[in-house]
Amino acid sequence: MGYTILSFPLPLSVVSLFIFCFSIPGISAVRYPINVWPKPTTFLWTHPQAILLSPNFTISNPYHRYLTTAANRYLRQVLTEHHQPLFKPPLNLTSAPPLQFLIITITDLTSPLTHGVDESYALTIPSSGSTNATLSAHTAWGAMRGLETFSQLVYSKPAIVASGLYISDVPLFMHRGIVLDTSRNYYPVEDLLRLVKAVSMNKLNVFHWHITDSHSFPLVLPSEPELAEKGAYGEEMKYTADDVNRVVEFGMEYGVRIVPEIDMPAHTGSWAEAHPEIVTCANMFWWPAEAKWADRFASEPGTGQLNPLSPKIYEVVKNVVKDVATMFPDSFYHAGGDEIIPNCWKVDPSVQTFLSMNGTLSQILEMFVNSTLPYITSLNRTVVYWEDVLLDPIIKVSPSILPPENVILQTWNKGPNNTKRVVASGYRVIVSSSDFYYLDCGHGGFLGNDSQYDQPPGTDPGNGGSWCEPFKTWQTIYNYDITYGLSETESKLVLGGEVALWSEQADSTVMDSRIWPRASAMGEALWSGNRDETGKKRYAEATNRLNEWRYRMVSRGIGAEPIQPLWCMKNPGMCNTVQPFVS
Amino acid sequence: MGYTILSFPLPLSVVSLFIFCFSIPGISAVRYPINVWPKPTTFLWTHPQAILLSPNFTISNPYHRYLTTAANRYLRQVLTEHHQPLFKPPLNLTSAPPLQFLIITITDLTSPLTHGVDESYALTIPSSGSTNATLSAHTAWGAMRGLETFSQLVYSKPAIVASGLYISDVPLFMHRGIVLDTSRNYYPVEDLLRLVKAVSMNKLNVFHWHITDSHSFPLVLPSEPELAEKGAYGEEMKYTADDVNRVVEFGMEYGVRIVPEIDMPAHTGSWAEAHPEIVTCANMFWWPAEAKWADRFASEPGTGQLNPLSPKIYEVVKNVVKDVATMFPDSFYHAGGDEIIPNCWKVDPSVQTFLSMNGTLSQILEMFVNSTLPYITSLNRTVVYWEDVLLDPIIKVSPSILPPENVILQTWNKGPNNTKRVVASGYRVIVSSSDFYYLDCGHGGFLGNDSQYDQPPGTDPGNGGSWCEPFKTWQTIYNYDITYGLSETESKLVLGGEVALWSEQADSTVMDSRIWPRASAMGEALWSGNRDETGKKRYAEATNRLNEWRYRMVSRGIGAEPIQPLWCMKNPGMCNTVQPFVS
Repeated sequence: MGYTILSFPLPLSVVSLFIFCFSIPGISAVRYPINVWPKPTTFLWTHPQAILLSPNFTISNPYHRYLTTAANRYLRQVLTEHHQPLFKPPLNLTSAPPLQFLIITITDLTSPLTHGVDESYALTIPSSGSTNATLSAHTAWGAMRGLETFSQLVYSKPAIVASGLYISDVPLFMHRGIVLDTSRNYYPVEDLLRLVKAVSMNKLNVFHWHITDSHSFPLVLPSEPELAEKGAYGEEMKYTADDVNRVVEFGMEYGVRIVPEIDMPAHTGSWAEAHPEIVTCANMFWWPAEAKWADRFASEPGTGQLNPLSPKIYEVVKNVVKDVATMFPDSFYHAGGDEIIPNCWKVDPSVQTFLSMNGTLSQILEMFVNSTLPYITSLNRTVVYWEDVLLDPIIKVSPSILPPENVILQTWNKGPNNTKRVVASGYRVIVSSSDFYYLDCGHGGFLGNDSQYDQPPGTDPGNGGSWCEPFKTWQTIYNYDITYGLSETESKLVLGGEVALWSEQADSTVMDSRIWPRASAMGEALWSGNRDETGKKRYAEATNRLNEWRYRMVSRGIGAEPIQPLWCMKNPGMCNTVQPFVS
Repeated sequence: MGYTILSFPLPLSVVSLFIFCFSIPGISAVRYPINVWPKPTTFLWTHPQAILLSPNFTISNPYHRYLTTAANRYLRQVLTEHHQPLFKPPLNLTSAPPLQFLIITITDLTSPLTHGVDESYALTIPSSGSTNATLSAHTAWGAMRGLETFSQLVYSKPAIVASGLYISDVPLFMHRGIVLDTSRNYYPVEDLLRLVKAVSMNKLNVFHWHITDSHSFPLVLPSEPELAEKGAYGEEMKYTADDVNRVVEFGMEYGVRIVPEIDMPAHTGSWAEAHPEIVTCANMFWWPAEAKWADRFASEPGTGQLNPLSPKIYEVVKNVVKDVATMFPDSFYHAGGDEIIPNCWKVDPSVQTFLSMNGTLSQILEMFVNSTLPYITSLNRTVVYWEDVLLDPIIKVSPSILPPENVILQTWNKGPNNTKRVVASGYRVIVSSSDFYYLDCGHGGFLGNDSQYDQPPGTDPGNGGSWCEPFKTWQTIYNYDITYGLSETESKLVLGGEVALWSEQADSTVMDSRIWPRASAMGEALWSGNRDETGKKRYAEATNRLNEWRYRMVSRGIGAEPIQPLWCMKNPGMCNTVQPFVS
């Protein structure tokens, strides 16, 4: 799962510290709480202390287009943030001279930000004997992770920094992301930038941008301008090429990949505004009165699917893919593929004819995949599909047309079961199990006149109208083991996970609080795991640290929701369900 | 339930309009959607049109300290808001001269803002023949409700206003409020002011301020300054007398009563910081390992209850009550009384002695009520208690010491059952059923290491750690009939309702989105009901109107959460569960 032992040349003092500490069992040799989120995989801190950060503190780093920007940003941050911890670390301030430098060394300045890039780093903050902290990483992107860790170790006014500390850190999983749906409701670019910033703070590395859906098509494409012109919610609710470039470049500065998703062939009702002829069942009422669920036209209001039997669609799709691949340099391209609803295709005469000649709906999907997948891969992209293309009970394709070397599947149904099915078929997988990772769940439904709400009092409230209740708490997310039930070999195919915010009931007003700190919980689980050195789930310890981190995120401008009364921070352990541990 | 037929002298044109319309059955004679939230009880609008609002538009009103302020505020608002409706009303702009005046007349300028004050009003906006709109009300507070309605009828740039309209409006229930808990987490005064503003916008009239609890005591009291000095979360997390006065005066300007709650004798752990000797079981671990639930010390982390057997408490309580009554002029005083936990009292030797002499815990509570209730009522206050004082299965008082003329009970358990029990005992009731009105539910638990989260995948997720799951959707709140199961006589004792935001997992970052627009849903249900003229629940119609209203609240600076994809607004009826109605 990507865990490697770091073998950087270590300064002598650190080596001796390391040796000294090996007498204490366990990797994280020191019980002293380290206020870093996600928790580093390895740290040594035998004599927890703190030293002043010099007002002239500087960060030195080899020039790198994005790392230099990031280092300047972190420099400003550590000098001005003055975070006041809620839970004061009882660190002695040493009389050692203030820390003057953080010296960054990079082994390979050329590694691009891409899937699997080395994000490991080692950070040493001396307690005395040196005024230099050091940060070593193989890549600029690993150095960014280390800078984030360093920034979280700085607090108070005047700024002081935890010292006598050696951290060696590397993520368990390579792919750690967030899905945001900008079609059902629109998010201004400023929101997306703030999201990327918070993604980076949490050492997540992917913003999976579910840009379009049946509800709106906000992306302005040079080759298909009409899609946004007619399919966006409004003139002010579009993403131009400049906007996208701003998000992508911002992502680079923060070490966050932007993976675009143009969902198709389903979830494309909005395409019909510009191209009615290529979309089946567009603008129909989604679930006719008294029809069975199986006879719905879409999984939710907003109908429309591209018709793979219409030759015209391939021209449009090719234009879309080409433009998107040009705008988004990432090597992953998400092509959707979820929730193709039989009835929507079946209303189309061409589909009816095809079926009457003993064709199947799955064959129609295969035609679509065969006509689009090779084109996307020809643009040097790895294609991510939702699990449905392989696992849907009705409309799915043969694995033979989904080459595992070019295709990754993203699971969202049936928890670990579908992840198991996907890896057992030899595919790499990104886990977004709705039972654990869907941030919108447990919020009721959005339907206009759902009669299940109008029950006499006393009736079992059931799921409150939410198909994926209950609400996924940070603990639920934190505790989920995404390789649950897999063999060691199978586990290697698990690239990582993504929490998802679908936007039926979300937009700017709630984006931050719906995502944070719950996405932080996944961030730590996928970075250093959710267990302590004894293999026990560490959520009691994690609670205080996450609380502290949540307050720091808020002070950094991210409207993360609170997870406890402030009282719990002031009375550590007292908000647990069992006696507080005796230290 | 407070519904009265208005008998204002009506201008002749309105009378004829009224007569003309009586040929159409039903009260709300016009099907045309009126974008006002809550919906007025009666309106006549036979020829929906709009007229320009003159740039020199003015509001004239008799001088009234608070109404004059409100009228100036509304004048500024209608001239500058320029709300762009999502769902454009297809109103013809008449060629009539622009509206120049809104003329307010008040029957009684002296009525104070208090429970039961007349909030009715009548608003006439002519379509032609006059450049004056008129707003008649019995009281200044009713006029404020009418001004709000008027403001919601103005939209677009240049400003236009719906016209040819006569509204006669009066609330079904007198008491329509929101509980906010500022003890578990602190809210800056600016948040409270914004809350009051939004309360007023929604024609709610009470902010029930649950100021203190076991977690913090933020209220600075002149006679007991140590309570906040030691019990507040911090120097910056207090409410001074000036702060309170600001909130109270702001409430007056917005027609919102501020009802203070100092919860006691339970929920008082924070008092122990200043007065450890009067609090039992303070700072204990709330639920000892392996103890039964019945043997807990508090319902949640944060222990401590005033000890009614300690004479010292009455001195402190009297000081607290006196100061609070001085700071809060409202005639209601909420004295708490919920969740007294047996084990917390039982740890105290004086209680043990009392019990050993065949005393009961209920007798101890009776002593407390007998020693405090008469003092509060002597200050001309009606006392509100949580239902527990009467209905708790273990610790409760005899009705004989709770005179119904001085005491109101607020229900929160068992939905309509406990409301029924309270009114059957002859008490007036405020309904806050947790099954319907608790805004914090369905968000998981806040406990630090709750083992129910650490289950293998596939385990039934149950309630996700929330004692009152699921999330109360706006539809759940909207559909709740607070007089369900009551006789007509019993219903008269139902003063109204309050939604509640308990703050274990809420603070500034989420206040707006947790409260709005769900509290708006209660606002309409308690103002004009949740049914159309045929007696059918009107939530399908309400959805679009609430959506529109939510967007307007956002543009007014209230971060209300979205309830649907924007697509649903652009495609009215298409997000329902049955075929859209054919008009």
